[in-house]
Amino acid sequence: MANSFGTLFRVTTWGESHGPAIGCVVDGVPPRIPLSEPDIQHWLDKRKPGQSRFTTQRREPDTVQILSGVFEGKTTGTPVSLLIQNEDQRSKDYDDIKDKFRPGHADYTYWSKYGIRDYRGGGRSSARETAMRVAAGAIARKVLGTGVTVRGALTQIGPHKIDRARWEWDAIEDNPFWCPDRQAAQLWEGYLDGVRKAGSSAGAVIEVVASGVPAGLGAPIYGKLDSDIAAALMGINAVKGVEIGAGFGAAELSGEANADEMRMKDGKVAFLSNQAGGILGGISTGQDIVARFAVKPTSSILAPRRTVTIAGQETEITTKGRHDPCVGIRAVPVGEAMIACVLADHLLRHRAQCG
Amino acid sequence: MANSFGTLFRVTTWGESHGPAIGCVVDGVPPRIPLSEPDIQHWLDKRKPGQSRFTTQRREPDTVQILSGVFEGKTTGTPVSLLIQNEDQRSKDYDDIKDKFRPGHADYTYWSKYGIRDYRGGGRSSARETAMRVAAGAIARKVLGTGVTVRGALTQIGPHKIDRARWEWDAIEDNPFWCPDRQAAQLWEGYLDGVRKAGSSAGAVIEVVASGVPAGLGAPIYGKLDSDIAAALMGINAVKGVEIGAGFGAAELSGEANADEMRMKDGKVAFLSNQAGGILGGISTGQDIVARFAVKPTSSILAPRRTVTIAGQETEITTKGRHDPCVGIRAVPVGEAMIACVLADHLLRHRAQCG
Amino acid sequence: MANSFGTLFRVTTWGESHGPAIGCVVDGVPPRIPLSEPDIQHWLDKRKPGQSRFTTQRREPDTVQILSGVFEGKTTGTPVSLLIQNEDQRSKDYDDIKDKFRPGHADYTYWSKYGIRDYRGGGRSSARETAMRVAAGAIARKVLGTGVTVRGALTQIGPHKIDRARWEWDAIEDNPFWCPDRQAAQLWEGYLDGVRKAGSSAGAVIEVVASGVPAGLGAPIYGKLDSDIAAALMGINAVKGVEIGAGFGAAELSGEANADEMRMKDGKVAFLSNQAGGILGGISTGQDIVARFAVKPTSSILAPRRTVTIAGQETEITTKGRHDPCVGIRAVPVGEAMIACVLADHLLRHRAQCG
Amino acid sequence: MANSFGTLFRVTTWGESHGPAIGCVVDGVPPRIPLSEPDIQHWLDKRKPGQSRFTTQRREPDTVQILSGVFEGKTTGTPVSLLIQNEDQRSKDYDDIKDKFRPGHADYTYWSKYGIRDYRGGGRSSARETAMRVAAGAIARKVLGTGVTVRGALTQIGPHKIDRARWEWDAIEDNPFWCPDRQAAQLWEGYLDGVRKAGSSAGAVIEVVASGVPAGLGAPIYGKLDSDIAAALMGINAVKGVEIGAGFGAAELSGEANADEMRMKDGKVAFLSNQAGGILGGISTGQDIVARFAVKPTSSILAPRRTVTIAGQETEITTKGRHDPCVGIRAVPVGEAMIACVLADHLLRHRAQCG
Repeated sequence: MANSFGTLFRVTTWGESHGPAIGCVVDGVPPRIPLSEPDIQHWLDKRKPGQSRFTTQRREPDTVQILSGVFEGKTTGTPVSLLIQNEDQRSKDYDDIKDKFRPGHADYTYWSKYGIRDYRGGGRSSARETAMRVAAGAIARKVLGTGVTVRGALTQIGPHKIDRARWEWDAIEDNPFWCPDRQAAQLWEGYLDGVRKAGSSAGAVIEVVASGVPAGLGAPIYGKLDSDIAAALMGINAVKGVEIGAGFGAAELSGEANADEMRMKDGKVAFLSNQAGGILGGISTGQDIVARFAVKPTSSILAPRRTVTIAGQETEITTKGRHDPCVGIRAVPVGEAMIACVLADHLLRHRAQCG
Repeated sequence: MANSFGTLFRVTTWGESHGPAIGCVVDGVPPRIPLSEPDIQHWLDKRKPGQSRFTTQRREPDTVQILSGVFEGKTTGTPVSLLIQNEDQRSKDYDDIKDKFRPGHADYTYWSKYGIRDYRGGGRSSARETAMRVAAGAIARKVLGTGVTVRGALTQIGPHKIDRARWEWDAIEDNPFWCPDRQAAQLWEGYLDGVRKAGSSAGAVIEVVASGVPAGLGAPIYGKLDSDIAAALMGINAVKGVEIGAGFGAAELSGEANADEMRMKDGKVAFLSNQAGGILGGISTGQDIVARFAVKPTSSILAPRRTVTIAGQETEITTKGRHDPCVGIRAVPVGEAMIACVLADHLLRHRAQCG
Repeated sequence: MANSFGTLFRVTTWGESHGPAIGCVVDGVPPRIPLSEPDIQHWLDKRKPGQSRFTTQRREPDTVQILSGVFEGKTTGTPVSLLIQNEDQRSKDYDDIKDKFRPGHADYTYWSKYGIRDYRGGGRSSARETAMRVAAGAIARKVLGTGVTVRGALTQIGPHKIDRARWEWDAIEDNPFWCPDRQAAQLWEGYLDGVRKAGSSAGAVIEVVASGVPAGLGAPIYGKLDSDIAAALMGINAVKGVEIGAGFGAAELSGEANADEMRMKDGKVAFLSNQAGGILGGISTGQDIVARFAVKPTSSILAPRRTVTIAGQETEITTKGRHDPCVGIRAVPVGEAMIACVLADHLLRHRAQCG
Repeated sequence: MANSFGTLFRVTTWGESHGPAIGCVVDGVPPRIPLSEPDIQHWLDKRKPGQSRFTTQRREPDTVQILSGVFEGKTTGTPVSLLIQNEDQRSKDYDDIKDKFRPGHADYTYWSKYGIRDYRGGGRSSARETAMRVAAGAIARKVLGTGVTVRGALTQIGPHKIDRARWEWDAIEDNPFWCPDRQAAQLWEGYLDGVRKAGSSAGAVIEVVASGVPAGLGAPIYGKLDSDIAAALMGINAVKGVEIGAGFGAAELSGEANADEMRMKDGKVAFLSNQAGGILGGISTGQDIVARFAVKPTSSILAPRRTVTIAGQETEITTKGRHDPCVGIRAVPVGEAMIACVLADHLLRHRAQCG
């Protein structure tokens, strides 16, 4: 079950970066939802590599095929199977690392666990798998309907944070970083060029905001919406931290500043702040759901690093191949997709129990 | 399934803070493990309120009973049912909040979801439920065996962080905060006395370290050890953020600084740093597993707060009752327990697939 | 997870026949359903032993307590915990079988699996556990509402079958067998007296009929309604066979006789027969759901039987204690309860996916 | 989750009979097991249609591709994705049934549930899906190892049963029915020719025997081996009944005849009979596991049948297309595969809990 997530809107992915294809099966999709390949391709294209000099120059057209679950343009309620052929595989790039563990990668842990590993491009642990998350997220968005929007933005690269006062959602399509602060985006260009030329890499922080989520989604105790979001985001490659609302900053707030007060507005409950990030007791409040996650710098760098071989010999390694100087950039659409999947799952779960 | 967690080592909890009792059922426990009530009580006593002036003065003896799954002092492989009678319930404390939503609490969201709520002491959303997490964690520790230790410490209260250079594990039993830095503990006493007397509250950050975990626990993609830890910790009451290893700090590191290099030591793989927090690709590396979580300040404070009633009237609320000025303190044993449960589950899962 | 069943309406049971208590936790119950202890006790009383000379003379008042999930007479959406104290335990009855495996019982297999067993009264494998199934079933009936009725009847004891032409549902309350054929019931009295006096035991077949189930419950492939019913019934103690509709008899039918034809009646689809037992492709047709299951004769009999000891010595065993000459009788309310639970689960699952 | 089965050895299938392909994802496979396409094709070929005049004349080469989870000829522990292209699709065969519900088929129930259906060849409800069960079963056999054999045989067609005294396992490959009784096989040929020429169809009973299963597999209460087998077999298309060991016949046995006595033989426990079918208390005894299931006659027959249209008009239907006169024949390898999958799952589950 390690390769599935979700309770009712359930996604199972499979595939290695250098195998013949990758794919996923999405079970539990409600019937009669219009769905076609372009609906999914739209989101995949956002994640696609090679769109700027700041992402890997691998060329993966990532053309998705729907193999089941859709009939005459609508979902049938049966599992939707999606497949993407792998195309631009240069397995030879990996020959010299076949017996060495790359620091910061999953090489050593997969080998420790399984006693065997598909070393080509990270195999199953490659970020290539996240394409299927984005594809599943596209279906999740359809389940959520147009009333719910899920948008992500990069709020920090390396040590450089955006100025939240300059946040413009419109800006994120205008720069190669999904950055909502136009000034920061310019600064980042110079910074990341330097990182890239040095053969190094940088980390990042991404914020995802879901608007239009009704109050009541989520469930107590171990089915909490924030708990499922935390699992979903922490499960993305290279993620090391997750926050909801005020997040770690909440530790520094006073009780007065932290608890969002409530008033009535147009006959509805309105909160005066959103430190909670739209979730209380694991259940949505109706405010924007705000989640943030930190991505570590790409582990594949040009500088030689000390490591060991499968045989237990000390050695050094230099990662060649084509890599993202900041994997956090392409993590934006992945984070959005994961949140969309969690919300779709909880929408169905809520409907099941509460009608 | 919202009240269960774990795949093979599976914990289901039940009960409201002001019902007759709370309890849990732990399924999947391996057979023939010595287990008795004192084994569990030991850990419950650490979480018990009223042990200092910095935790709630409610008196909950929290005496645990084993109702099943143990025969002649050993587990039988059948479900272990645990029960704690509720004793010090002052439901009348809650009469005046019966129609009002307490800001920062789950009152509004439970009511939005279910259209009904047990308002006495938060009902199901009360932190009282965490007693059963601690109890289940005690069993998880037995499953992990003596080779694995799981310890937690408070590293920040309000804005005041410890100095990590002064970290002494021995110190945590010597102060009412589980603080590993003796100087910080003294400072915190004064700070938290001020907070308490002002009727306010403070947040906190807790760090849990699991030592002795073998390499290979965890599973790829959606069964990642860090993903399950994130869900487990984020699901604790009042938690707003979770980090593994370098956490959000990883975003600021260079690729060189982040990826832990490897050497051989005494014939075994040894890492030269632990930015990864003991987990790569969702699988344990054999290093210490290091997780951190942020707890928001207690929402029950004496200052009057603006809110609304069930009927949609604007009003104010002052929380009476007996509350923790910093719920983060009692979250330390809860965080430990959750990590222990996740590790026990993954130990069984690993054994299943890899023998 | 071996002690839980159901996906959304999820029941977890615990407890041994001679431990302090048995209980269950029912998660996923929709909120605001009126529920009180008498609602559950009503069904437990039907299963209670000692109601005639044809069931065990153990005295188990089986008084159920609701420990959580109900507030002011209504379900809150949080887990409902039920508990029954064990009272009439004569553990000494079991002292002489402590080292011997009773043929036909789970003694040998539990011991093979776990290397330890609670031998008192069968421990976890005792039919006592089925009391909690009946209790959970009472809640499931509430979820299904009054439009759905689930009724069971004994249609065969030993080799003696009822005459289906004489089927009267009213008759089942008038005899100690839940027999719908008054003449058969009389015959069975004499037959079972003979069996009982001989210290032997008899098997039985039970039929459960669920009426009022709407078309559309169930799901394709591995979530089939009949598949879940088969698992639920086969999981009852001593059950060795399960049928839906024509069951094994379907093998002898021609294609023409088997496929239920359809007409319109009062603007609705009406089937001209019900060989399908109300289920096609794993999904309910709207007709009565008809399931049947076979219960083997009680394994505890007075005649000495050859067996072996834990130490591997050949020996004989005579089961003393107080036992049912035909456990099938008390399996009737258990079978009803299991069907009710499966239907409640699928009602919620259907609502989740299809709204 | 309706399209997945198994807890740890977990199979998810997808695809419609007339879509571009069908496939499955097998998660939880232990690493380092040699696996190649021929290993799977071997079992698929047994199920392949068109091998005699008694199965459908559709031509489905059913060539399986492994798309992931295998590296250099061995499983890696990551999900194994299998795919079969659909080839011989004559969708036009189904044009005239597009608005009519075929009696005995899932047409009406899918439409009732989802409000939409892929009517071409039954879509998802087609027995074509069972190819993926057979493929998954091939992997399950690898997990079980060579010490366990799972074999099935047809023991009844229409009203004609085999004579169990003439049972020869060797015979099953020598006739088109997997019949272990050579004389019965000859009789069946004439009988089924008559059925086929009349445009009718016949039901069947299949028996599957698993040998070499160690004592201790299975789990109490809701994880019973027989319960999971019942679900697995009842979930095969057209199955209406499932038995273990003596099955429904157990109802007619005396307690003395039913409970299998035990002796020691060569230092091991030996049972003197196997009425239990190798399972007691839901856990394997070490004897052969014996399961039986009944398959109804093919619902697609040439005789016109009364039915209704989607619009609620009464009409008649005659199924054209190419169909099996007895679907039970091709259910033999499917039944074997399902048992193999259940056993592989329980092998891993047992190892998890009991080491």
